[in-house]
Amino acid sequence: MFSSEIPDCNPTVSPRLYHICMAPVSVSTCQLIRSLAHSPANFLEEEGNRGLVAAVFGILFSSLCVLVLDRDPLPLIAQYWKILALLYYPAFYYPLIACATVRHRVSYLVGCLLSWCHCVVHIWQKVDCPQSPKIYRYYSTLSYIPIILCLVLLSLWYPALLIRSFTGQEETLDKERRKNLLQKKKKKKKKQSAPAWTEVTPRCLAQPQWDAVTRGSHGTTPSQVALLLLVAVVPTIQIVRAGMTKDIVILLVQFGLVPSESPAVPGDMEKELSTVKYYLWSLEVCYICSLVLCCLLTCAMLLRTLVMHRNNLKALYQGAVLDVFYKAHILRPSRQAIVCWMSFAAFQTAFACLGLLIQQVIFFICSVGFTFLFIIPLQSGTNTYLFKIIQNMWPFWLTLVVAVIVQNLAAHYQFLEQHPLRKELTNRRALYIVTYLLFPINVLVGVLAGVWRMVISGLYNAVHFSQLDISLLNRSVETFDPGYHTYCHYLKIEVSQSHPVMKAFCLLLLQLARPEGPPGLQASNVEEGIQLMQPKKAPPSRARFKQTRARWWLAYTLLNNPSLTACRKTALSDPTANGTQLSSPKP
Amino acid sequence: MFSSEIPDCNPTVSPRLYHICMAPVSVSTCQLIRSLAHSPANFLEEEGNRGLVAAVFGILFSSLCVLVLDRDPLPLIAQYWKILALLYYPAFYYPLIACATVRHRVSYLVGCLLSWCHCVVHIWQKVDCPQSPKIYRYYSTLSYIPIILCLVLLSLWYPALLIRSFTGQEETLDKERRKNLLQKKKKKKKKQSAPAWTEVTPRCLAQPQWDAVTRGSHGTTPSQVALLLLVAVVPTIQIVRAGMTKDIVILLVQFGLVPSESPAVPGDMEKELSTVKYYLWSLEVCYICSLVLCCLLTCAMLLRTLVMHRNNLKALYQGAVLDVFYKAHILRPSRQAIVCWMSFAAFQTAFACLGLLIQQVIFFICSVGFTFLFIIPLQSGTNTYLFKIIQNMWPFWLTLVVAVIVQNLAAHYQFLEQHPLRKELTNRRALYIVTYLLFPINVLVGVLAGVWRMVISGLYNAVHFSQLDISLLNRSVETFDPGYHTYCHYLKIEVSQSHPVMKAFCLLLLQLARPEGPPGLQASNVEEGIQLMQPKKAPPSRARFKQTRARWWLAYTLLNNPSLTACRKTALSDPTANGTQLSSPKP
Repeated sequence: MFSSEIPDCNPTVSPRLYHICMAPVSVSTCQLIRSLAHSPANFLEEEGNRGLVAAVFGILFSSLCVLVLDRDPLPLIAQYWKILALLYYPAFYYPLIACATVRHRVSYLVGCLLSWCHCVVHIWQKVDCPQSPKIYRYYSTLSYIPIILCLVLLSLWYPALLIRSFTGQEETLDKERRKNLLQKKKKKKKKQSAPAWTEVTPRCLAQPQWDAVTRGSHGTTPSQVALLLLVAVVPTIQIVRAGMTKDIVILLVQFGLVPSESPAVPGDMEKELSTVKYYLWSLEVCYICSLVLCCLLTCAMLLRTLVMHRNNLKALYQGAVLDVFYKAHILRPSRQAIVCWMSFAAFQTAFACLGLLIQQVIFFICSVGFTFLFIIPLQSGTNTYLFKIIQNMWPFWLTLVVAVIVQNLAAHYQFLEQHPLRKELTNRRALYIVTYLLFPINVLVGVLAGVWRMVISGLYNAVHFSQLDISLLNRSVETFDPGYHTYCHYLKIEVSQSHPVMKAFCLLLLQLARPEGPPGLQASNVEEGIQLMQPKKAPPSRARFKQTRARWWLAYTLLNNPSLTACRKTALSDPTANGTQLSSPKP
Repeated sequence: MFSSEIPDCNPTVSPRLYHICMAPVSVSTCQLIRSLAHSPANFLEEEGNRGLVAAVFGILFSSLCVLVLDRDPLPLIAQYWKILALLYYPAFYYPLIACATVRHRVSYLVGCLLSWCHCVVHIWQKVDCPQSPKIYRYYSTLSYIPIILCLVLLSLWYPALLIRSFTGQEETLDKERRKNLLQKKKKKKKKQSAPAWTEVTPRCLAQPQWDAVTRGSHGTTPSQVALLLLVAVVPTIQIVRAGMTKDIVILLVQFGLVPSESPAVPGDMEKELSTVKYYLWSLEVCYICSLVLCCLLTCAMLLRTLVMHRNNLKALYQGAVLDVFYKAHILRPSRQAIVCWMSFAAFQTAFACLGLLIQQVIFFICSVGFTFLFIIPLQSGTNTYLFKIIQNMWPFWLTLVVAVIVQNLAAHYQFLEQHPLRKELTNRRALYIVTYLLFPINVLVGVLAGVWRMVISGLYNAVHFSQLDISLLNRSVETFDPGYHTYCHYLKIEVSQSHPVMKAFCLLLLQLARPEGPPGLQASNVEEGIQLMQPKKAPPSRARFKQTRARWWLAYTLLNNPSLTACRKTALSDPTANGTQLSSPKP
């Protein structure tokens, strides 16, 4: 569309050159990182760098959006290899996430340089060529804004990490930790009967950082889809409005779409032309308003998802399975659960996109209907068909309202005996006659109720489409909803792998070895675990309560780490005392 | 439409004459019935004449359909009084239902004559004037067929009742019953301390016959709506097909709607004309097929509603409230519950109508899409755009399928440790890397899952729209669905008013007075009540069980009839023995 007006533009750093240079850099960075640390892969386990992880996933999703709409997505190879790009882009941006994970000064420096490099190239390209013939002249630039913003965030985050590493605190901790791990490994090889803390702790420390990932996608998803929806329609309407001529207005008047007082005379169509332009402007306003509403609603729903997810996790930690699921579930990893866990963040992103699209369609239709059936007729005084219909039907509406009121009053004063012990039906014969006589009117009331049922279920489903934690189907078949099914399994993995009590327990075990605490776990986790374990009231017998709790902790630990059972008596010489220690911070 | 072809027709018995004659007859019949019996109004309580009640409600609904679409619905008064007809028709057909209720030979005779009269007049009118200009020439006749069928049913039912009354069995029972009631009433007036059986029995005998009513509506609702949908569209398509000319075909070819090998030459359009006619014929076939499918589906859903209603009632009788409702409910009449009970059958009818309409729209669009995008391109080999698109996208589909399979295999063989005690996550780092790398592909899988979510929730809601016992909303907000809300309250009233144990108890009380049993209650009720009370296994101590059960029965009776508490010691001299009698038929 109007691509002829936009001159061909080749940026100084062409995308081809960018990828040819940066892809080898990425690969070598990965190798550098591997040589620095034992593994850069546990980026989904670490806490602290949530913003960073979110930013990289945001870049990834934005790249996907650009990729799907681009004609030449991977500038190195032929068009056919678009699919390969789906795997290439994650690998391409992988060093950006890996550099933060290994917790090494050199890796922070590399991350710094990489993110600056990416950022500068992207900004340079878009400053060089802000316009492109695709969809809308500035669409390409606008669609890169989320990527650039995420890269700017990374460009600031890495220097911050680097500076913090120079203050010393982080580095020493990290070195010690790795040394510790290595020592433990060596020790373990030497003496098999030693407690396998190194094996236990990673298992229970793992708190998957999908929160951060989904937040990253949440930030970029609505913006990308809304941008696409905006630039695909609004410029077109503006062009049509600017190019509206009297000839077209005459056609519209003849079709009866535009009201006209005088019959179609080409010379005197000024008023009708302005009416058509006003209509088009109204259409544009409706579109933009509904888009804004959709974006706000989607964001609200995604935030609500986070809140509900937190509540669901809490409930499941406390064992209240039936508060979350309709039927009892076993919270244990399974093949299906792992697959669902892997695809959850992606599904959440995709559903948010689709939900925004569906909401936009529905709200746009509703707002256009409201504008052209109510507001414009009220303003201009023409096209008041709907008002006339409603006005002519007033006896009908009155009948329905009266019938409903009469039934309510009769039910309250005539058919319900306000007995002291319980309410009881009375005047049955009158009840039957009234029911029989009002049957046809009630059918008409029922038609209105049915329309309301249709509207409310459609709106509910559209508004909650992006929420995976809500099934759109009836409770008896709710797991047939693919979104809810994925969420249920995802929740199972989350709960089974990151119970706060377990994490608090592991932290305390690690504290025994190093009093300053491990870097991966924060005090908040311990507090949460302890709070979950606190009963609401003070127990009658303090000693007995402590003993019970200690026993429970022991049982729980052994259940989750059956390998410990063998070496229990040697390593945990006094499990009761160990368990009781948990409650000591509290009076 | 084509009304000029249909000659004006005045039936020998004009509707005006019919109503002028029959309305006074109806009124006088009502008065006659009142003079015959204490009250003709408890037609919703009586068992036995379910078919009759269903037929009258069927007539009522069909009349409503005719009324809503008619221009001159009530031929006596002006157009404006259409609303009055909503109350007039139930009153007009009231004697047909009342005659069966009073159980008197004269009333059966009157019912016979009335139904014959109605039936003959309707048939006569339609034979006189089978065509009318409304919608479709035979629509008027076809829309009266359900009414005529229901009237034929009544015309056969009443003679059958009359003949049965002459065999003597029914009449003697009935006379005795009324005599009994009168005697009891007199006795009660004399001696206040006597047990108020006459008060107790009507209260617990009431089993509202909405089953029958809904069945009657079920029979006529789909037929009326389907008829309307059929005659509103199919004749039009046929007329358009018959009147298709080459000029229109040229237009269609120019718009690209019909494929043409040669450019538009008016002389040689035979092939294109036949193509257009074939397309229109396909459209007609699609419409009829989807209509048949909708009708079958609606009928199946309505039957399922009856089955589910029966199961829900059983569960609630046994006290399993949480099997039926998501949250605990108090099963007690209330103002709202009575209003919902009154409007339930009407709502069910209205929802069935709307559901059929929605299903027809959806299925028609789907079948047309399927026909014109798959079947016709496969037949003719033209218009194969869709196939080409799908064919060109095969690497994309292959990628998605491979990604899903790879994730499943990896989850099963790599990430899941088949521990003897419990399954456990393993290879976490590989899991995180695979998850990260597959994120973009999973987003695309998620888009497909989202489309499936949209389709499945839309289809589910459309198919189950006519089922009031299913909420179309999520379980947390399910009572915001007006249909489900009505059903819940209706169920409360049904359960609180017709518990089989209560009915069995009342029957046994009545049997004490008259060994041949009252006419209103059948043995099946007693059996059901006793079965509900039977424990699954033989109790350890027979005597103790009997005593417990007797006590329970006593408590239940007193709870439901608190007025009995005062006179318990005098009337129920030995409640335990009375209660134990219930179990005596069982070994």
